Amino acid sequence: MNGADSLLAALEHNGVTTCFANPGTSEMHFVAALEGATRIRGVLGLFEGAVTGAADGYARMTDQPAATLLHLGPGLANGLSNLHNAVRAHSPVVNVIGDHASYHRALDAPLTSDIEGTARPFSHWVRTSSGERALASDVADAVTVARRGRVASLILPADAAWNEVPRDGVPPTALEAPRPRVDALAAEAAARHLHEAGERGAILLGGRTPRAEALEAAARIAAATGASLLTGTFAARVSRGAGRFTAQKVPYAVDAAQEFLSRFDTLVLVGAQPPVAFFAYPTKRSTLTAPGTRFIELCGDTTRAQLPLEAVWEALPESARAAAPAAAPLAVPGAAELPAGTLTPQKIAAFLAHAIPEDAVVVDESLTTGWAFDSATRGARPHEWLNPTGGSIGWALPVATGAAIACPERKVIALESDGSGMYMPQTLWTQAREGTDVVTLVFANRKYQILRNEMANVGVEHVGERAGQLLDLDRPTLDWVSVARGFGVPAERAETVEELSAAFARALAAQGPALVEVVL
Amino acid sequence: MNGADSLLAALEHNGVTTCFANPGTSEMHFVAALEGATRIRGVLGLFEGAVTGAADGYARMTDQPAATLLHLGPGLANGLSNLHNAVRAHSPVVNVIGDHASYHRALDAPLTSDIEGTARPFSHWVRTSSGERALASDVADAVTVARRGRVASLILPADAAWNEVPRDGVPPTALEAPRPRVDALAAEAAARHLHEAGERGAILLGGRTPRAEALEAAARIAAATGASLLTGTFAARVSRGAGRFTAQKVPYAVDAAQEFLSRFDTLVLVGAQPPVAFFAYPTKRSTLTAPGTRFIELCGDTTRAQLPLEAVWEALPESARAAAPAAAPLAVPGAAELPAGTLTPQKIAAFLAHAIPEDAVVVDESLTTGWAFDSATRGARPHEWLNPTGGSIGWALPVATGAAIACPERKVIALESDGSGMYMPQTLWTQAREGTDVVTLVFANRKYQILRNEMANVGVEHVGERAGQLLDLDRPTLDWVSVARGFGVPAERAETVEELSAAFARALAAQGPALVEVVL
Repeated sequence: MNGADSLLAALEHNGVTTCFANPGTSEMHFVAALEGATRIRGVLGLFEGAVTGAADGYARMTDQPAATLLHLGPGLANGLSNLHNAVRAHSPVVNVIGDHASYHRALDAPLTSDIEGTARPFSHWVRTSSGERALASDVADAVTVARRGRVASLILPADAAWNEVPRDGVPPTALEAPRPRVDALAAEAAARHLHEAGERGAILLGGRTPRAEALEAAARIAAATGASLLTGTFAARVSRGAGRFTAQKVPYAVDAAQEFLSRFDTLVLVGAQPPVAFFAYPTKRSTLTAPGTRFIELCGDTTRAQLPLEAVWEALPESARAAAPAAAPLAVPGAAELPAGTLTPQKIAAFLAHAIPEDAVVVDESLTTGWAFDSATRGARPHEWLNPTGGSIGWALPVATGAAIACPERKVIALESDGSGMYMPQTLWTQAREGTDVVTLVFANRKYQILRNEMANVGVEHVGERAGQLLDLDRPTLDWVSVARGFGVPAERAETVEELSAAFARALAAQGPALVEVVL
Repeated sequence: MNGADSLLAALEHNGVTTCFANPGTSEMHFVAALEGATRIRGVLGLFEGAVTGAADGYARMTDQPAATLLHLGPGLANGLSNLHNAVRAHSPVVNVIGDHASYHRALDAPLTSDIEGTARPFSHWVRTSSGERALASDVADAVTVARRGRVASLILPADAAWNEVPRDGVPPTALEAPRPRVDALAAEAAARHLHEAGERGAILLGGRTPRAEALEAAARIAAATGASLLTGTFAARVSRGAGRFTAQKVPYAVDAAQEFLSRFDTLVLVGAQPPVAFFAYPTKRSTLTAPGTRFIELCGDTTRAQLPLEAVWEALPESARAAAPAAAPLAVPGAAELPAGTLTPQKIAAFLAHAIPEDAVVVDESLTTGWAFDSATRGARPHEWLNPTGGSIGWALPVATGAAIACPERKVIALESDGSGMYMPQTLWTQAREGTDVVTLVFANRKYQILRNEMANVGVEHVGERAGQLLDLDRPTLDWVSVARGFGVPAERAETVEELSAAFARALAAQGPALVEVVL
């Protein structure tokens, strides 16, 4: 066997079953070795951002790393922006980045660049393999790192991939993710301060923590203390809908967020930082909480935040623990209750409350179209909601693809903006090829509406024609139906609630991907 | 005026007239300031790779920097792979990368990342502006650096953009590019060794050096000494066609290149490194010249290589200087001489010899389809030919866009592979919006043919189904006509020489962009 065989055997041994790939010449031995690594599914992306974003989506749904395969420094570079989102989501990812043969690097061939330096700003762990005999343990180390919610980047010199290695038994085994640490003092402080704060207390779940179990544990504390249950604006994954315990989302807009958070003077942070503005503005404060707010950091970002939250519950006075929280009741409007006619963000929100299927995964990059979705869909059928954690757009199509490959039994609904969707539209081709069950709604307002809003926020009252042309997506109008069909994905256009409803039903009934251009 | 106004005034003062942009919230003051900077044309790209690639194309045709405008670390990251190509082409580029306000960085908002660390592997110069009062001199420094054929990355904190600065007269002036240094000893050595080597000598022009004037100067030396005139496989820009002095291109394939170069024992390097293989292969040497070849480095990569070459000419014996080189005769096949029927790479090469219009700019990412184009088009109407210097694919559509904006009076012909074109297809929208006169031919072989070839080169004889699916672009077939129309670019499909000829004529006759999917 050669190094590439050894690397893939180590991935298989450590439970990696999916490799999102965009290979080049230096990765040909890896690709050839994939032929024999039958427990690993290779998925081709036509662009590296599709590859890394898919790995993020896969990780969010499985809590296990997929591998990526990327071609040298520039291939890695194309994948960085979605790695940024993965880093911010604490998604486990193992990147394998092919490099020139070790002896070839010094020749400075055209594709040579500083791969380690390129990986470092968007990886928790970077290693250039020292050679073919190290690859199996490199993989074990990378998987160990990734399982802690981190991005591991392993650089694979081509000669390490093609050199022969002895077949010497079972590859090294990666460590499991550690159990989240329960800080008894922090739990006791949280219990005491929430109890004292009453309605001025809140529990803020960020990152990967707002899963059903943790939300239930937090809701019990909230019921017992009078505290509010909050999630970060862009939590990586939230369990939502009927039967779940609802958390309020911290608003995106700075003024609204500051107003909302001003009612709290005690915040228990669960996988969250003290909330700050996404951007700075000349005349606004960057922190969102009131000065003097007390923060209690209960735990870091973990998929099992119920453990530290249960410790808070245990630390509450016996008397308080009698109160029981109420789960969200089912509140799915029937077809007859839906609004009609031309589409608005509010009507789309109502439609989603009606339409989200049970156990769906909603991948939300709707931005300005979607501000009303959160409150409208709290009583929808139970589902998981993924948010763009790092703010780098072009995220939803790749993440939806990876989530669908991770969960073939679930419907995935991608809520995409036309501006954001244009970053990585070729991702649709991978959906078509893999038959992923993704229904994409592209909200076509034909401008960077968020930037139009932000112009006002930064104090620019009048946007002239020259500046405005950097904010609008008309001239020419993007035809998403034509683009999607070109990539092999069935598509249609909807301009009314009725058309959206019919198109969505057709898309949902079919197996495989579909896209609806939702014209606003 | 605020810092952004000051920055744009400094760009205007230093002759920067084009800004390729993909802005976000942190760049809103820059965008607002563009309203008043009427000498700068803002061009919106829907993805940052389109932005940086366009700046590369613009630079190759003007030898002056365009500015880019990029949004934070992830926006920069999306532009890196085409910056890699620009770095390798010694293209002057000034990147302006918006950052959070300086006081906001420490809060670690979601879009925060290490921008300097991200820029460094793909920039010659990186600076975070110290504030609004430094911006005008930051720009002068960045333009000075760029004019030396370098990528300068200036990071613009949002508060530096929005803070007020005094209007204090004329901004600092950037230095012009220095005159290329003529190394008299190297010129004398080149003359002596070429004279001695006779037919075993060669002059290799790489990078930006193979312009008409330098090719003529080199051709005179070649005629006087018996040396051959060569260009690098992927020289940044080559003046070609009838009336120009033809250089032979070093072949891409390692075996062919080694065979070709084995006939030389003396190589004068003009803006070139000793030729090496693009990739390493298990059983091939990585250097392309024979062991013991003598290299004489005449000069670095410059747009005025005729100056050092003229010094070589002066150093030749008087007697040798009588011989005159012959320019390429016009050899344009008439329509009646063209092959007919279904398309092959050879037929397309013959068609291009017929079809390239006078003064065209050809942007060539045809890869496996295009190996025969070089020899077939040596007698075409005079034109400039741009090559992908850094090997990062997804290069041609953006570079063609920038070249067309730089040269509105010229036709730009983009020769694109279907695999490479899929990296940044949204670039077509910018072409449609700006009305760029670009005719794109997409060669649709529906696979990564180069990787199929490379599999054999790395010693894999049989590619199985599981590995093969990472090399093929069928299932589903990409419909480039539908994709292009979706982005607003007129498109048609050609399956024969006759159809290609008719479609190309229509595309050329129209103003604005057009695309032909050339099915192989």
